Amino acid sequence: MTTAAAASSSTASIHHRLLQSSSPSPRGRHLAISCTDVTPSSVSTSISAEDRGLYNFAAGPATLPESVILKAQSELYNYRGSGMSIMEMSHRGKEFDAIIKKAESDLRRLLSISDDFSVLFLQGGATAQFAAVPLNLCNPEDTADYIVTGSWSDKSFKEAQKFCKPNLAWSGKSDKYTNILPFDEIQQNPDAKYLHICANETIHGVEFKNYPKPKNNSSILVADMSSNFCSKPVDVSKFGLIYAGAQKNVGPSGVTIAIIRRHLLGHCQPITPVMLDYKTHSDSASLYNTPPCFAIYICALVFEDLLDQGGLVAVAQNNAKKAGLLYEAIDGSGGFYVCPVEKSVRSFMNVPFTLQRSELEIKFIQEAAEERMVQLKGHRSVGGVRASIYNAMPLAGVEKLVSFMKDFQARHP
Amino acid sequence: MTTAAAASSSTASIHHRLLQSSSPSPRGRHLAISCTDVTPSSVSTSISAEDRGLYNFAAGPATLPESVILKAQSELYNYRGSGMSIMEMSHRGKEFDAIIKKAESDLRRLLSISDDFSVLFLQGGATAQFAAVPLNLCNPEDTADYIVTGSWSDKSFKEAQKFCKPNLAWSGKSDKYTNILPFDEIQQNPDAKYLHICANETIHGVEFKNYPKPKNNSSILVADMSSNFCSKPVDVSKFGLIYAGAQKNVGPSGVTIAIIRRHLLGHCQPITPVMLDYKTHSDSASLYNTPPCFAIYICALVFEDLLDQGGLVAVAQNNAKKAGLLYEAIDGSGGFYVCPVEKSVRSFMNVPFTLQRSELEIKFIQEAAEERMVQLKGHRSVGGVRASIYNAMPLAGVEKLVSFMKDFQARHP
Repeated sequence: MTTAAAASSSTASIHHRLLQSSSPSPRGRHLAISCTDVTPSSVSTSISAEDRGLYNFAAGPATLPESVILKAQSELYNYRGSGMSIMEMSHRGKEFDAIIKKAESDLRRLLSISDDFSVLFLQGGATAQFAAVPLNLCNPEDTADYIVTGSWSDKSFKEAQKFCKPNLAWSGKSDKYTNILPFDEIQQNPDAKYLHICANETIHGVEFKNYPKPKNNSSILVADMSSNFCSKPVDVSKFGLIYAGAQKNVGPSGVTIAIIRRHLLGHCQPITPVMLDYKTHSDSASLYNTPPCFAIYICALVFEDLLDQGGLVAVAQNNAKKAGLLYEAIDGSGGFYVCPVEKSVRSFMNVPFTLQRSELEIKFIQEAAEERMVQLKGHRSVGGVRASIYNAMPLAGVEKLVSFMKDFQARHP
Repeated sequence: MTTAAAASSSTASIHHRLLQSSSPSPRGRHLAISCTDVTPSSVSTSISAEDRGLYNFAAGPATLPESVILKAQSELYNYRGSGMSIMEMSHRGKEFDAIIKKAESDLRRLLSISDDFSVLFLQGGATAQFAAVPLNLCNPEDTADYIVTGSWSDKSFKEAQKFCKPNLAWSGKSDKYTNILPFDEIQQNPDAKYLHICANETIHGVEFKNYPKPKNNSSILVADMSSNFCSKPVDVSKFGLIYAGAQKNVGPSGVTIAIIRRHLLGHCQPITPVMLDYKTHSDSASLYNTPPCFAIYICALVFEDLLDQGGLVAVAQNNAKKAGLLYEAIDGSGGFYVCPVEKSVRSFMNVPFTLQRSELEIKFIQEAAEERMVQLKGHRSVGGVRASIYNAMPLAGVEKLVSFMKDFQARHP
């Protein structure tokens, strides 16, 4: 893969370098053009549409569609002739109004979200939602069921203890978060106001492939979908509330999306900070106070891109292919690479694995980085290797990783 | 002012348009370069460093330094050769680590913040802080003094009622928020845990020029500085806590800065959502969970720009000059334009005014927009006209507005 150097010259001359990348790129070949300001101003303006020559396996913030970044770059200084950057616009002006409305309607199309649900653009990440969920859905004396399949659902369970009496319906901790119990064996509390799951555990790589049903008919299913949001079709009608930090599949960090049944709005505890009251945000169409405008704009571009790809059915097929390739390489390594997660619940987004000879892991990660495959280190709490292969990771990136894995193994017999 | 058309062509050819703006710009003359991709890809890459030909008087999100937007644009696709956009980078990687550390150290330099204070980059705007302040600084039975000088301090006072027993030490509501009582006449509660002010009311244009002292020696001064943060030097040592949404003077929306004395950390109420616990964020250097990375990066660029300008003394001189010019035009109009705010507390950031003949206000705002001076409409809650003239509004923008005001008056005798 060709690495085109970034242009950052500040000399008082004009450079136009046109570099045609020789590598196949998922979006066709790219062109590098660097335009350097000739004015006495200290501002150097360069735009580099070159192939960046890197596969970024970060768990989030994570790789975004190249076309989205390039479009955002082209519009950053003067948004569609408005004379302003999106970062400078009033959130109540006509330009941003069109952006947030399109973001919502495109997301509704992607996930077939009915009008029974309100779609909100919030702040604070999933972590803020860990408090918002019990504050909005139950009283301090109420109980709620939590299924704990990894670090994130464990955090949500612990945060809920401040605001209600959550019940640990099941925990995978004793198995180091490598599986999920059959749903009929989960100890649901008949009085639970809701059943909470983390649909995909970013650190442990455990993903729900289908969803449990709350035992109590008046209860609802709540899911943290931060790390597999919009990676596949989901029947939203099975849920009361879905929330997701954007910084995995659909945008940069700084915006959190919540999809909530309207009949659940308006019952929050009196001690709910207004920023965590879903009704306040729903009544104001996410404009109660200044929203994270630029992050919402990027989500809007990503949603448009996902629709252009054919929607979530096509996206899911692509993701299944990438994950299949990677798990096959791990399982076919004769034990050189090991994924600890039970096959039926392996994440298609975050693939954690270890090397049988753990002393080789640092070398593996370093050599991969030298080959321009970065951010492969496992989360500091679990170690090992983790490849996050979100929507925007091209198939070619996974193929390159698999090829590197085979080569690395061959060099370490 | 020349308006250079934005380039958005998607034809399969290369355009290089070099337009030298004829107007004086605060950062020298600019150049328009548009580079259009010649590949079959659908991505059209254009960069327009032209003079955008517009003065944006929005109250926030607001105009940002042109050099900052251009730098962010140039770095958006491939941050300093990393192969990634800042939006795609792990918040725990070395690139972002350098960004957030520089943001903090530059801000400490700008405001001479001692190590007695922790500097935090948070989410949720000032609105989230309205809850965080009482949750962190007092118990439910405690009292705290609030001085209400406009809509924002009124909101903070109301939110505090959920978490403590706030005392309304003074309110300017009966005078329609046009003044501030002499500090020695403020009814402070001797038991108050803190004294809260909004240093600048964005909607009503009332600004503290100096600061009251809590009567109780164990109490502390807390200020919402969202709309005048970094517009002038401030003696931070007089405060226990300063907080500010960034989207006025220092960045885009989506990041909130808090500066808090370290000895105040670690005493939050048990019902504090973890996202509102200052100690959690301080202990993690603002990386407890994924921060709004891109917004923090823009703040870092703005802080650097403010230091380059000579720091906040120079910035304040510039702001005083701009505000002086505008208020002089209002006061010298023989009553055609009226600013309702008492002279001693008029904001240097947000200048609200009305026209004596209120039926002309819509025409005034429309004609100004035709002259490319936008976002001059007063907040929907108070009407009239409001010119927000934050740090990044050039003197030339205020001069143009003043000239238009005189012309408009002459045409409506």
